[in-house]
Formats: sequence, C-alpha cells, structure tokens
Amino acid sequence: DLKYYFMSPCEKYRARRHIPWKLVVQILKIVMITTQLILFGLSNQLVVSYKEENMMALKNLFLKDYSGVDEDDYSVAVYTQQRVYDSLFYVLDQYSQLGRLSVGPLSYGEDEHGDVLPLIICKQYYKRSSVEPSNEAYDIDAQLETVCMSHDPKTANQWKTQNSSFFDLDFYRLVDMKITFQLNGINLQTVRSRELPDCYSFYITITFDNQCHSGKVKIFLDIDAQSCPCQDWKISGTAQKNTHYLLVFDSFVIAVCLTSAVLCSRSIVLAVRLLQRFSRFFHENYSRKVGEDDQNEFLNGWYVLVIVSDLLAIIGSILKMEIQAKSLTNYDVCSIFLGTSTLLVWVGVIRYLGYFQKYNVLILTMKAAFPKVLRFCCCAGMIYLGYTFCGWIVLGPYHEKFEGLSRVAECLFSLLNGDDMFTTFAQLKDKNTLVWLFSRAYLYSFISLFVYMVLSLFIALITDAYETIKKYFTLLSSQQCNCLQDLNLPIYSVLCCCQRYDGVTGL
Amino acid sequence: DLKYYFMSPCEKYRARRHIPWKLVVQILKIVMITTQLILFGLSNQLVVSYKEENMMALKNLFLKDYSGVDEDDYSVAVYTQQRVYDSLFYVLDQYSQLGRLSVGPLSYGEDEHGDVLPLIICKQYYKRSSVEPSNEAYDIDAQLETVCMSHDPKTANQWKTQNSSFFDLDFYRLVDMKITFQLNGINLQTVRSRELPDCYSFYITITFDNQCHSGKVKIFLDIDAQSCPCQDWKISGTAQKNTHYLLVFDSFVIAVCLTSAVLCSRSIVLAVRLLQRFSRFFHENYSRKVGEDDQNEFLNGWYVLVIVSDLLAIIGSILKMEIQAKSLTNYDVCSIFLGTSTLLVWVGVIRYLGYFQKYNVLILTMKAAFPKVLRFCCCAGMIYLGYTFCGWIVLGPYHEKFEGLSRVAECLFSLLNGDDMFTTFAQLKDKNTLVWLFSRAYLYSFISLFVYMVLSLFIALITDAYETIKKYFTLLSSQQCNCLQDLNLPIYSVLCCCQRYDGVTGL
Amino acid sequence: DLKYYFMSPCEKYRARRHIPWKLVVQILKIVMITTQLILFGLSNQLVVSYKEENMMALKNLFLKDYSGVDEDDYSVAVYTQQRVYDSLFYVLDQYSQLGRLSVGPLSYGEDEHGDVLPLIICKQYYKRSSVEPSNEAYDIDAQLETVCMSHDPKTANQWKTQNSSFFDLDFYRLVDMKITFQLNGINLQTVRSRELPDCYSFYITITFDNQCHSGKVKIFLDIDAQSCPCQDWKISGTAQKNTHYLLVFDSFVIAVCLTSAVLCSRSIVLAVRLLQRFSRFFHENYSRKVGEDDQNEFLNGWYVLVIVSDLLAIIGSILKMEIQAKSLTNYDVCSIFLGTSTLLVWVGVIRYLGYFQKYNVLILTMKAAFPKVLRFCCCAGMIYLGYTFCGWIVLGPYHEKFEGLSRVAECLFSLLNGDDMFTTFAQLKDKNTLVWLFSRAYLYSFISLFVYMVLSLFIALITDAYETIKKYFTLLSSQQCNCLQDLNLPIYSVLCCCQRYDGVTGL
Amino acid sequence: DLKYYFMSPCEKYRARRHIPWKLVVQILKIVMITTQLILFGLSNQLVVSYKEENMMALKNLFLKDYSGVDEDDYSVAVYTQQRVYDSLFYVLDQYSQLGRLSVGPLSYGEDEHGDVLPLIICKQYYKRSSVEPSNEAYDIDAQLETVCMSHDPKTANQWKTQNSSFFDLDFYRLVDMKITFQLNGINLQTVRSRELPDCYSFYITITFDNQCHSGKVKIFLDIDAQSCPCQDWKISGTAQKNTHYLLVFDSFVIAVCLTSAVLCSRSIVLAVRLLQRFSRFFHENYSRKVGEDDQNEFLNGWYVLVIVSDLLAIIGSILKMEIQAKSLTNYDVCSIFLGTSTLLVWVGVIRYLGYFQKYNVLILTMKAAFPKVLRFCCCAGMIYLGYTFCGWIVLGPYHEKFEGLSRVAECLFSLLNGDDMFTTFAQLKDKNTLVWLFSRAYLYSFISLFVYMVLSLFIALITDAYETIKKYFTLLSSQQCNCLQDLNLPIYSVLCCCQRYDGVTGL
Repeated sequence: DLKYYFMSPCEKYRARRHIPWKLVVQILKIVMITTQLILFGLSNQLVVSYKEENMMALKNLFLKDYSGVDEDDYSVAVYTQQRVYDSLFYVLDQYSQLGRLSVGPLSYGEDEHGDVLPLIICKQYYKRSSVEPSNEAYDIDAQLETVCMSHDPKTANQWKTQNSSFFDLDFYRLVDMKITFQLNGINLQTVRSRELPDCYSFYITITFDNQCHSGKVKIFLDIDAQSCPCQDWKISGTAQKNTHYLLVFDSFVIAVCLTSAVLCSRSIVLAVRLLQRFSRFFHENYSRKVGEDDQNEFLNGWYVLVIVSDLLAIIGSILKMEIQAKSLTNYDVCSIFLGTSTLLVWVGVIRYLGYFQKYNVLILTMKAAFPKVLRFCCCAGMIYLGYTFCGWIVLGPYHEKFEGLSRVAECLFSLLNGDDMFTTFAQLKDKNTLVWLFSRAYLYSFISLFVYMVLSLFIALITDAYETIKKYFTLLSSQQCNCLQDLNLPIYSVLCCCQRYDGVTGL
Repeated sequence: DLKYYFMSPCEKYRARRHIPWKLVVQILKIVMITTQLILFGLSNQLVVSYKEENMMALKNLFLKDYSGVDEDDYSVAVYTQQRVYDSLFYVLDQYSQLGRLSVGPLSYGEDEHGDVLPLIICKQYYKRSSVEPSNEAYDIDAQLETVCMSHDPKTANQWKTQNSSFFDLDFYRLVDMKITFQLNGINLQTVRSRELPDCYSFYITITFDNQCHSGKVKIFLDIDAQSCPCQDWKISGTAQKNTHYLLVFDSFVIAVCLTSAVLCSRSIVLAVRLLQRFSRFFHENYSRKVGEDDQNEFLNGWYVLVIVSDLLAIIGSILKMEIQAKSLTNYDVCSIFLGTSTLLVWVGVIRYLGYFQKYNVLILTMKAAFPKVLRFCCCAGMIYLGYTFCGWIVLGPYHEKFEGLSRVAECLFSLLNGDDMFTTFAQLKDKNTLVWLFSRAYLYSFISLFVYMVLSLFIALITDAYETIKKYFTLLSSQQCNCLQDLNLPIYSVLCCCQRYDGVTGL
Repeated sequence: DLKYYFMSPCEKYRARRHIPWKLVVQILKIVMITTQLILFGLSNQLVVSYKEENMMALKNLFLKDYSGVDEDDYSVAVYTQQRVYDSLFYVLDQYSQLGRLSVGPLSYGEDEHGDVLPLIICKQYYKRSSVEPSNEAYDIDAQLETVCMSHDPKTANQWKTQNSSFFDLDFYRLVDMKITFQLNGINLQTVRSRELPDCYSFYITITFDNQCHSGKVKIFLDIDAQSCPCQDWKISGTAQKNTHYLLVFDSFVIAVCLTSAVLCSRSIVLAVRLLQRFSRFFHENYSRKVGEDDQNEFLNGWYVLVIVSDLLAIIGSILKMEIQAKSLTNYDVCSIFLGTSTLLVWVGVIRYLGYFQKYNVLILTMKAAFPKVLRFCCCAGMIYLGYTFCGWIVLGPYHEKFEGLSRVAECLFSLLNGDDMFTTFAQLKDKNTLVWLFSRAYLYSFISLFVYMVLSLFIALITDAYETIKKYFTLLSSQQCNCLQDLNLPIYSVLCCCQRYDGVTGL
Repeated sequence: DLKYYFMSPCEKYRARRHIPWKLVVQILKIVMITTQLILFGLSNQLVVSYKEENMMALKNLFLKDYSGVDEDDYSVAVYTQQRVYDSLFYVLDQYSQLGRLSVGPLSYGEDEHGDVLPLIICKQYYKRSSVEPSNEAYDIDAQLETVCMSHDPKTANQWKTQNSSFFDLDFYRLVDMKITFQLNGINLQTVRSRELPDCYSFYITITFDNQCHSGKVKIFLDIDAQSCPCQDWKISGTAQKNTHYLLVFDSFVIAVCLTSAVLCSRSIVLAVRLLQRFSRFFHENYSRKVGEDDQNEFLNGWYVLVIVSDLLAIIGSILKMEIQAKSLTNYDVCSIFLGTSTLLVWVGVIRYLGYFQKYNVLILTMKAAFPKVLRFCCCAGMIYLGYTFCGWIVLGPYHEKFEGLSRVAECLFSLLNGDDMFTTFAQLKDKNTLVWLFSRAYLYSFISLFVYMVLSLFIALITDAYETIKKYFTLLSSQQCNCLQDLNLPIYSVLCCCQRYDGVTGL
C-alpha cells in the first residue's frame, strides 16, 4: 500500500547504513571549488593591480594637471584655448621622451617589421561651420570630416614646426580630437609568484571631446590592455612548476563536479519514475489526481541547483585552464562562472541543514513566505517603477543620482535601505522653486510609503508565514505524522512525507 | 432583488465575453506615456548638460581661483582688499579677451542695431557711513546709493586708467557690487541628434557681496540662460525630420489619454446612477440608509486616479509639443506634468493586480492600514514639529544641517531613516558646553523616541491590519460570500460586494 | 454615589456648553510661541553668521597656508622650525598692516584713553630643559616660565630687529606660545533689518602648541566675540521702530503663558481635592484603598507638562527682551529656553488628539509600552556601557570615532541606527593584527547583538502593548464602560474613568 | 522532601538577612575596574598621541609632496624617474639637516659607543633583467641581489658625488629600495601629568616599492617606535608620586577580583554538589533522570562569566603595573584584557536586574531566542559565505570594497545594516557591461534577500520567543509556581525553581 511506498525506502536507507556517497562528493566539491576560487582570485588580483597601476601611471604621465581623481568619466576638463593647446602638446612632449620618464618597463609599440608605430592624432570637425552667436546666425554642414597626422617619437623636434597648420584648431568646427598610440609592457611581478611574465600591449586613446560645444573640453584617457605570451623569453633562478599543479587540480575539480552532476541527474530520474508510480497508485486507489504542488515537491529543486552549479563550475574550470595556459585572457567571464557556482554550492549547504528539524522550520518559513513576498514585490514594484520614471524625468537634470534610469532605480533602492538621505535632499537645494517643491514631495512620499508601509508589510508577511509553519510543526510532532490524511493543506502536508521521502530520492 | 443587482452584472460580463477595451486602452497608454517620457528625457538631457557645462565654463573663465566646487551658494570667497581688486579686474580682463579664451561658440551679446552690449558694473553703498570700530562709533545713512559704469570690450585698454575713481572702493560703505553682461551661444550638439540648434542668451551676473560687512566678500556667479530659435540659419548634411514624427506621436498620446479619460468618466457616471438606485432600493426594502463607507466604495478611487493622470498627460504632451516647436522653453513644468502622469499610470496598474485575490490581500492591507498610519503620523508629526522648531532655534547657528526649518525637517527625517548620525553628532563637538549637552539630549531623545517607539508602532499597525484582512479573507472564502448580512463591518463587507461590483462599474 | 462623581461633571460640562477657554489659550499660545521662536531665530541667524564669517575672515588673514578647513581642533599644523617662524612672523606682519588688508570694518582695540591696545606675545617654557635624545638623557625643571613681549602696530618696522632674542626659540624648552590681541568691529548688516548695529570686541588668541613635543606644532585661533551697544552713534534713513513692536509682542507672550500656567495650576489643585474626596468616599464605601496607579492618573501629567513649558517660555521671553534691549548677549541660553518650551507646547497638542478615541489607541500604546521599553533599555544599557568602555580603551588609540567616551557612545549609537559601518571597519585596517581581530569581533558582535536582538525585541514589546490596548478598547466599546468593577487592571480601567474625568479636571 | 530542598534555602536566606557580601564585592569591582580602565585609557592616550604625531611629523619631514593623507597603504606615489630621484635625495637632504628642521626633541640614534648610527640605503634588484617590451622579449634571472650604502649625517655634502654609481638606478631591474635609520626622541609631555618622561627609539623605514613594475613607484614610511626608560635623567619642579598611588590601586583591584573569583568558584562547587544530591533524590523518588537542560540550569553561566572577567582583570592589572613600572610597553594587549573584563563585568550587571521579575522577562526572551537566532544565523551564514566568495572573485578587481575576503564580508554586513548603498553601486559604473550587469544582480538580490527576508525573520523569531516567555510568566504568576509538576517544558519550568534556587547557589 501507499504507506509502504513512502515508509520503506526510508527504512531501507536506515537499514542499509551505506556511506552517503553523495554527501561526501558534495563536501569535497565545496572544499575544492572554494580553494580553486581563492587560487584564481589571488592570481587574478596580480593581473588587475598591474593593469590598474599602469592606468594610473599613464594618466599621470600624459595628462597635464591630472589630479588623480576621475570626475564622472572624464579625467581632466579644460576651459580655455590655451589650456587645450597646452594639454595637447604635453601629450606629444611626454610621448617623445617616454624612455626617460617612465619608471616601468614600457616602450613604444612596434609593427611586425620592428619599426616603431607612430602616434596618430585625428581631429574631426564639421565640414563647414560659420557660427556667429552674437547675430544668432549659423551656417553648418553637419557632415564630419576627419584629418589625421602621425607623429614619430624619433623625429620629435620637428613636429611642431612642420604641422603648424594642423595644430591651428578652429574650435567652432572642432568636434573631437583623438590621439592614439600603442605601448608595450611586461608584467614582471608574476616572476615572484613563480609564473611566467606576460607581455601586454596598451592601446591608448586620449580624446579631447568638444562635441557639446559648451566651452568645456573634456579629456578622456582610455586604455585597452591586451596580454599575450611573450615571444622571446629566457628565465632563470626559479622553477615554473606551479602552473602544472594548478592544471591537475582544475581537472580534478572538473571530475568531481561531473560526478556530482551525474549522481543528481540519476536521483531526478528516479524521483520522476517514483512520481509516476505514486500518481498511478494514488489515482487507482483514491481516484484523485495528485495536486500540482505535491508533484512539484517530487521534483526536488535542490538537485536542479546542484546540477546548475556543477555545470557552471565545469565551464569556469575549463576557462581557468585556458587562461592559465595563456590561450585566453577573459578573466571576467571566468570569474563570473566560478563565483556563481561557488555561491550556489554554498547555498546548497542549507539543504543539508534542513535535515535537522529545528533548522527546517526556518528554511520552510522562507520557502513559504517567498511567493507572498514576490507577489507583494510585484505590487510595490509598480509604484517603484512609477517613481523611477518620474524621478528621472523631473530630477534627472538637477541631481547626479537621478541621471539615468538605472541610477534612479539604484538611488531609490538605496534610500529605501537607509542610505544617506540628507545629501540627496541637500543637493537639490539650489534649484528653482518648483523643482525644489516637487523634489521634497517626491522624496518624502516615496520614503514614507516604502519604508513605513512596504517594509512593515514584509515583516507582517514573514511573521505570518513563520507562525503558520510553526503551528504546522507543533501539530506534526504531536500527531506523529499521519500526514497523508490531510491532503488539503498541499505544501505542508507533503513536507512530512518528503522528510521520509528524501530517503528515496535524496542523499 | 438586491442579489440580482450585484450578481447579474458580474454574470452578464462573464456571459458577454466582450473584449475589455478599457484594459487595452490602459495598456496602450502605459506603453505610450512611458515611451514619450523617455524620449522627452533624452532630449531634455542634452539641453541641461549644455547649460550645466556652460555654467562651469563661465565660472572657470571669469572667477579667479575658482576651485570647481561651490560652497553653499557662493562660488568664491575673498578676505583681503587686494584679492577683491584682483578678482574684479580679472573679470574685466577675461571679458575683454573673451574671443581668444573661450573654447565654445560664445560671443558678446548685441542689441538690435548690431552694437555690442557693454558690460555694466554697479556698486551699491551706504550714502554716508563713517565707521570707527575702535571708538565704537558710527554715523550711517542707511539709504543706499548706486553708481554704475559700463565697459566696452573694444576699448579694453583704457578702462582702468579712465575710471580709477570708480575702482577706489570704500569697503566700509560698500554693500555690494554687481557685474552684468550678456553672452550669446549656440547649442550645436543637437545637430547630431537631428534637431535644429538653438540660440542661447546668457545673462551673467557676478555679485561681490559685502552686505554682512564681516570681512568676507562672497562672489556669486549667476547665469540666466534663455533659449530662442536662431534668427538666421542654414544647415546641410542632415535631415531634420525627427521633430515631425515626434509631434505626430505626441498627438497620438493625447488621443489615447482623451479616450481613457472619457471611458472612465462614463464609468463614474454609471456608478453614481447605480448607487442612487441601490440606495433607493436599500431604503425601501430595509428602510436603512447606506453607510457613508459603502457609498465611498461606489465612487471608485481608481477612476479618479486615471482621469487625473490622463489630464496631466494631456497637459504635459501639449507643453512638450510647444517646446518641440521652439515656442516654449519651460522644460521643468513639462517634465513635472509628464513625470507625475507616468507615476500615476504605473500606480494604476496595481488596480489590475487587485483582481487576483492573493494580490488583493496585500492591497487591502495597505488600504486598511493607511488611515491608522495617517492618524498615527498626525500624533508623531506634532512631536516632530516640536523637535524641528527646537532644533532650528538652538542648533541652527552651530550646524549646517539645522540652518533652515525645511533643512531641519529633512535632517530629522533622514536621521530617522538611518542617515549618517555620527557626522551629525561630530560636527557639533567644538561648540560651547551648554549647546553640546543640549544637542546630545536632543539627538538621543529624538532618535530613541522615533526609531524605537514610532517605527515599531508602524510595524505593529500594519501587522495588525494584515491579520484583520487575512482573517476576513479566510472567513470570506469559507462562507462563500453572503456578505451583505454583516453590514456592521463596513469596509470589509463591502469588499466582497465590490468584487462582484467591479463587473458593473469597472473594467 | 461614585458614578455621580465621575459622570456628572462630564455631563455638566456638556450641559453648560461654555467656551473651552483653556483650549483657546493653548492654541493662542502655540501660535504665539512659534511665531516668537521664528522671529528670534531669524535675528539670531544674522548675529551668528556675522560671527562665523568674521571667524573665517580672521583665520584667513592671520594663519599662513590656512586651507579653510579645521582638522580636529587646530587650524594649521606645522612641522619644521622654519615654518613655525614663518607662521609667527606672518601673524605680526598681517597685524601691522590690518587696515590695508581687511575688507570689513575692523580696527585695533583701544583702551579707555584712546590708545591702541598692543598685541601681546607670550611664550611659556620649561625653566630648564637640556634634552639629549641620542644619549637618552634629559635634565628638566618642570616648572614653567612665561616671557611676554608687546607689539604696537605703529612701530611695526622695528619689532623684528629689537626683539631678536625673544624670537630665538628653543624648541626643546618651548611649551607653547600665545599671541593675543583685540580687534573691534561693527555689525552693520542689522541696519538693513531695521535694528541698531552692535559693536563687537573680538579677543583673538593664536596659540602655537608644542606641549606634546612630538615634532608637530599645532596652531589654534580662538575668537571670543563680545557684543555691546555702540557708545557713539548716529543713524539716518531708516526707522528703528521694530524693536518696540517686538517688546510688546514678547510681553503679550508672557501674559498668555502666565494665564495658561495659572489655569493649569488651578486644575491640578482641583484634581487633588477631588482625589481626596474620591479616596475618602472609596475608603468609606468599599473600605479599600485607591491604588497608586489610580492616584497617579488623577495627577494629570499633561498639566505638569504645560506648566513646565509655560515657565520655560516666560524665562525665554524675558531673556529675549533683555537681548533685544542689548543688555544681554546670551543667545544660546535664550534659544534653549525658547526651543524647549516650543517643543513641549507641540508635544502637548497630542493630548488634545487623545480626545478622539482612534488617536487615543496610539497614544495609550506608547504610554503602555514606555515603561517596558525603559526597563529594557536599562538591560541593554548595561551591555552598551560595557561595549563603550571596552571600545574606548582598546580601539580609542587607533580610530578617531573611539577617541573619547562620549564619542564612542555616539558612534555605537549611530552604528546601531544604520550608520556608515564600512568606513568604521575600514579605518581600522592598517593596525596591528591583534587589534584588527579584536575590532572585528567587537563590531560584529555589537551590531549583531543590538541590531538583531535588541531592536527586534523593541518591536515585540510595542506590538504586544498595541495588542493589549486594542483588546482593552474592543472590550470597552462592547461593555459600555462599566469599568470600575474591574479595578484589578489598574491602568486601563482608570482610562475609561479618566475619559469622563477629563471633563472635571481637564479642558 | 524535594520541596524542602528548593524552598528552604530561599527562606533561610530571607530569614538570616545577612549582608549580601557577594553583591557588595561585585559593585566594588565594577566601580574599581571602570576607574582603572579610565585611568589607563587617559595615560594610554598620551602615549598614542605622541606616537601618532611623531608619525605625522616624520612623514611631513621626509616625504616630498606628502599631502597628509595616506591612500591605501602607501604615503606617496610617484610616476616618473625624476620624481623618484627627487624623493630619494629629499630624504637624504632632510636627514642631513634634521637638527635644524625638526621642531621636536629628535636626534640621530647612537650605538653603544656614542657614535651616530648611519642611515642605510639598500636597493634590491633582479640579478639580470634585460627587458625589451617592444620586442616582447625578456631575459630575467629571478634571483634578487641587494646592494647597500650607508650615509653618515656628518659627511652630508659628499655622499652624492661619492656614490653616483649607486644612485644610477636601473628601473627595469629594481625591485625595491629601502632607507632605514634610527632616531631617538623623548616624550616630555608626561612631565605635566606627573609621570617620568620615556625615551623612544624610532626605527624608520622608507620603502620605494617597484615590485609591480607598473610605472608607479609607491613610497611607504613605516615607523617602529619602542619606548624604554631613559638612562640618565634628572628632574625637578614636580613630585613624581602618582605612579605609586596607581600601583597601590592596581593591587587593590587585583585583590577584589581574586575575592570575587574565589566566591564564585565556591558557589559553583556548591551548586554541583547540590545537583548531585538533587539528581540522586530525583532518581530515587521518581526514578527519572534529570534532563540535560535542567542540569545546565544548575551550572549557573553567570558565575563562569564572573570568573572569566575576574581572570582577565587580574591579568590586565598585572600587565598595567608592569607598564607603569616601565618594564613592558605592550599597551594593546593590556587594553584588550582590561577592556574585555570591563565589558563582561557590565554585562554581569544584567544578572542582578534579572532578580526583578519584569526585567527577567526581557532577559529570558533574549535567552530563549538566542539558540533560534544562532541556528538561523547558520543558515543565513551559508548564503552569506556564498555571496562573500562570489563577490570577491567577480567584483574584487573593480571595487575597493571587494578587495579582500574580510573586506567583502564587512561590506556585505554593512550593506545589510543600511550602509551607503548608492556609492557601492555607483563605483561600479565605469566597468565593462558584463560585470556591471552582474554587480547589479548581485547587489539587488543580496540586499533584497537579506534585508527583507532574513531581518524580518529575526523579528518573527524574537516576537515569538517573547510571546512564549510572556505566556509562561502569566501562567506562573497565576499558578503560584507549582512548577516541578510540568517538567516537560524544560527551560521555563526550571526558571521558576531557579528563582528560588538562586538563594542557595547565588548571591
């Protein structure tokens, strides 16, 4: 009979006392994936700090009056014609004498013939633009023309005299000016952590942006750093064995994850079969259909979680091996895969805590409250969206926190969680009265509504769910679980069965 | 009978299965209004960034030692006579050579005859003021005299020699000095987004403020930027068709909003008629009056919301069209209309979510808790007001967050929601002991009272409302809604009726 | 009988329908006290801004390399002997040429004979101090000697040559050096708000602090500003009538407050008498004593509040009149009196809201929860005190937020309420490992304990109180208040009586 | 019988009315330990401020262009070869003329023969490193060589000429450069607080760090300050008696703590004996075992707390005496011992509050909620750990708050408690799109999950515990404590017994 179906596997499991292989695999997986993540993180940090420091060094070398802080996106802003010329010539001068300036192993990029790649300056301007603001008159050809000039560091002295016409900028027509050059560098610090140094190519673009024609020329410095294995190297004094051990370790991680994934898939298949048998039996004996909620309980979400995390870990490990073998440099993608898989693996630990009843109360509470919270988030989300749009359009021009739609969403979300509200208020003070009034109404109403109403309702929802679950559990422990009778409480009734059921399908 | 009145429209609705036109209109409206808002926002940003950057550029051009940051309202503060003269002459020098300095398309303003408008310096001083602080003696005529001088950029060299007496300032008498001039500019960047460039007139006022006679002369730079269509223009290389499409789109939005408003007004009219019939019937059969709460339920608040949002959207769209046609420049007003209407439209979505019972619980909870929360806010508001006044008068002189009444209110509101408390405490440390002690008592008592008592009570109120609603709903689902019998629970009883009622009046 | 005692006054009150004079007086008082506070605040701001700006101006005039920001207490810190001399001579130079420098009406202080008061420099040093750090040897006479020198601005050129020995500082012996001088100023800006200008004496002390002998000489600039009516003045062009109107208004405020205080005292006396009669009656008929809680209910706390607020307002108004009559300058004390009285007056409004039953629920909840919350605060306060001491001693040397006991208390209180935690964590990072570990354990444990346990318990307490009160009220409304039977619930039972009772004793 | 065992000691205690010595000892202990802590803290502050200010002074003296702010760990960063040489020579120049520069009593360190210890510069470089970035070629010998040079302040003029080859740096090979020297100082300020001045040796290390070879040379200045009693001193003008009084006071503290510890140990021994008798009796009469919970109640946790705090205080006091006797300088360890003991002593006060029943409710609630909260923290901790790892690996390179594992943990913990969320969001804006998207998903999900779900559940747990305890107490007060019957509620039933029991074992 039915009782047998549910009871026996549980008893069998207790009778057999075989070692819970799946648990062992999971624990091994947690340890290994976390170790792998930390190892990758440490080597990643070296690379990132090298790039970051080079970025800082190059900005300090090539940007005049660079203060070390980037406001918004641009590094430096200049406001007079003289300062534009100064900044421009400063770049060229510094570039010419790079060898004597730079502290790090940087040199000019070379093409395949060994010739130094020149620095290239391109200026883009309107084909025709005679603007006379005092007459409120203009005559513009909106098509853009681009003129370029190349500058070889070897012939440094002559460029200013030779290209005087090029450097005679007509600011009314000028849209932007781009200086591009390539520098090569070597990341020597990896030598000390027993890895081979990588060679880097820095593609540097310095942009003088006059698109807005507002009297403010913004100067950007962008670096595109690409690493590649060096072509010609010789090293002595250290053993470079580390990489091999890492590759072996990574393969082992992949193997463990594969095992874990296969075991979980098997369990899912078994669970589906059992469900079919159970529903057939249920249908025959009670001529009732098994509820959808009950069916969902059979499809153990944890297994799906484990399999997803395994797949992510495998992909991440493969990427990591590629990176270590210097055939890929995409650290970000790899770290997202590894990071997400580690997150999921740790979340999966909760499942094992759920086998202790006291912990289970908490987990079930969250599970029970989750749909309600989500549903409520839907409602609140509508108001939230409304506020986001409204804030963006009205306050956007006056407050940097409201500049873009995603920023508004973040700002409101932050305010909701107790962010610096006063500064948000205060930065809106200098504006015109209408916007000032609107901003006050907007912020007060939003915060009051969300902090006091919405957050309180969250607490009410979860307290409610907790009490429901707690009542059910006290009922359960007193009734000794003759739970299949009360099948009209779908979720909680199946809980009881599932506990025994986990013996069948689960670990 | 009564049941028929309530039941049948609902059934009729289900029977007819006609397409819910109103819902379709609403969805269309949401999509269109949001699109319109985003389009307007993007074009608005261009204008605002142009103004902002010009503001920055002009401050950097005309203010000596401008650091790029405005403290409070003033841009620069100077403390010695020499620095006042330097700053003053700097403005005049920079103005004279504007053409060679500025990076953007800026030029002197001209009057209608094509003559350059001169820069005007006005100084305002007490008619008579012989002050001898060391004798504690003064002799003041409090009436103000104003003397002005104009300065033509063409005759730049001579002004200093010619007006030496004007520039011999008597700081004891001087109240303030205003330099005003007009510059014209053209916002060329709109060319790239396929709109016509606007011409701008910048009315610049630089104020040297010595009103306080405290030894600190504050320098303000204010810009009043006014845009107008350029008088004489010629453009090639791009099509300027965008504006037309936008106008068509705006008209379409207006049409949709009108439709929506009309449909909702019709529903309200129908509802009022039904209410009259219902109350007549109720009066005749039970000889009881319909309660006010029940009557309010008939006047569906959602319709009012929709109509208000429609009206706002229509006004906003008209303003937007005017702005696009360059006949208006009032971006702020337009964005407030559009923003508020979008907010209301999105809030209106909640109503449709309310048709699902599970969502309804949450909405009703908020509705039920709302009056209590408001009532409680009243009580708390009294204490809050008291604290606001008290904080302003005592701490105002010592702490910038307590400088104005509205700032105190904001500061307290922010503290309540977890703002940086420590800095608020810390900034009060250097003052005299009495104020120090008071500030501590003030802040500790305020925060304890509000954060611990008031916020907790909010949670209690909402939890309570949630439980009431929940109980009612479980009752409802078990009793199958013979709700008209228990008319002594006014709000919740009508709920049940309303659900069916919505069939009549609503969507 | 008893019912009559309680019922009848209530009914009498309803019968008589006399105008509630007390309420009228209270409303008038609220309006007037708030107006008075705002008026005082506005005039106070002028004075404070004058002082603040003078402070800034003097710092900028006399401190070399002053950046406009005071770190901790000192304004500038210098590290080399040369910079000490520079800063010192800078003060003297600037002082000598003050007339040509300052923008404001500042001049040298004079004694009663009209002679300019000289600047005085005093240096304090150890009587004998031969220190040889390299030999780890010292020979100190810990007694301090003080040598002074005066410097007359008239003989500015000669001081450096004449006092060369004085300015030859022995840094090993030097403890500190104080420069004091007096400047006079006149606050002319009040002319524009139709008040008489005040004369100010600024007693300026510049301290070069070498007490710590740590190689860092801290320079403080302190100003003691004292205002007095100017001795010899003449003003024309404005009417100075404002002050008179203000004095009349203040007297009127005092009159209203006196009335209010007298009325409330009368009510208290009446209440006490009634209590005596009631308890005698109660004793005779039921031979039971009236509980202490019941007795306390008779002594209406609101009256005490009103009387206290009246007294504060009266004292504050008298001080304000004195200040306006220029015979006192103690703005702070006056503002504390006025501020506190305004706070109490607004809090008192809650009492009138309590007459509406729905509001009463909330007020009573807070009242009922208050003792529990206080009791709980006691417990939490112990742990809090422990953490305060512990944090001060261990983290004090390493973190500025933990420098003093009151600062630690504030910091912990702020952390509790969601202050910037990360910066607190982050600033502790560079220190030695033991302290680092301790700081983490300290912060994590404190925050977890307080935020999660203590704050949640607050919510539990208040939710509980709310439910108790709510239950009682539903009981009350159903039972129609035969409340004197259940005298074993002391507080809530008397509530019911009090409601009627307020007719007798209250408004 | 059993009742006698529990009842009588309680009654005996009431009968005897002997003075509660233990309570007196505890109160004395609290006062004394707190006093001791404050005294130690004040003297500690002098030492710490001396060290801190010396640190600042030395950084200002020896680091060129030092801005007064340390970014991350380094003090100054330089980017060009010229600036490296400048900074290096600046150190040497300043060192040579230290006597004329420094304001404080600092001099060169001397060896035991009285000779000045020279400054030593060591540079470390790769044995061989020919790097040609433009060819992507390098030839490195990873072994490091170190070359040193010493510099005597007496022969200051010649070093640059004599060691020109040493100062010819090959930046491609250079790994780092360390300048070390020793300065001696005397902390004279303690003279004024009537303590003997200490002599300090400052071991200063200035590191030019080029390990990363990124074009950015970071300059660190580290000081290791060691204090020792001065060798040769003579002081007059003050009595140095303070130290003796302090030593006597400390001994007294130790005596009190010892007494307290002994008394508590005795009580624990008595309690264990009683437990044995009780369990024997219980076993004989009811033939049931005493539950583990009941047993734990006998082992009063408070006593353990008191003993631990006593031991810590004793160790701390001994350390303090050593420090005052100048034979130890380990302020940190001492302050941790004293601080922790003070914390525990104050926490112990709660126990005495627990004797009042109303306070007990709160204490018991926390006690009852504690295991649940801990258990729940376990679950939440897993997710938290997952997020920590995931955030570190993915966001670590792009956001300084995610740089190290402990920092990520702190950052997430801070976010959870309402830290500045927006800045965390905002600092991630400039990065590549994938990471941007990930960071948003990461932050939104983390905050929503924890703030809304987890924190709300905390509140639910504690509200629940509070209600359980409250119910039990109302039961208790009505039933007049025939508590031994219901032994199936282990904790709460024993509570009742314990209250009486405390008479036996406790105070």
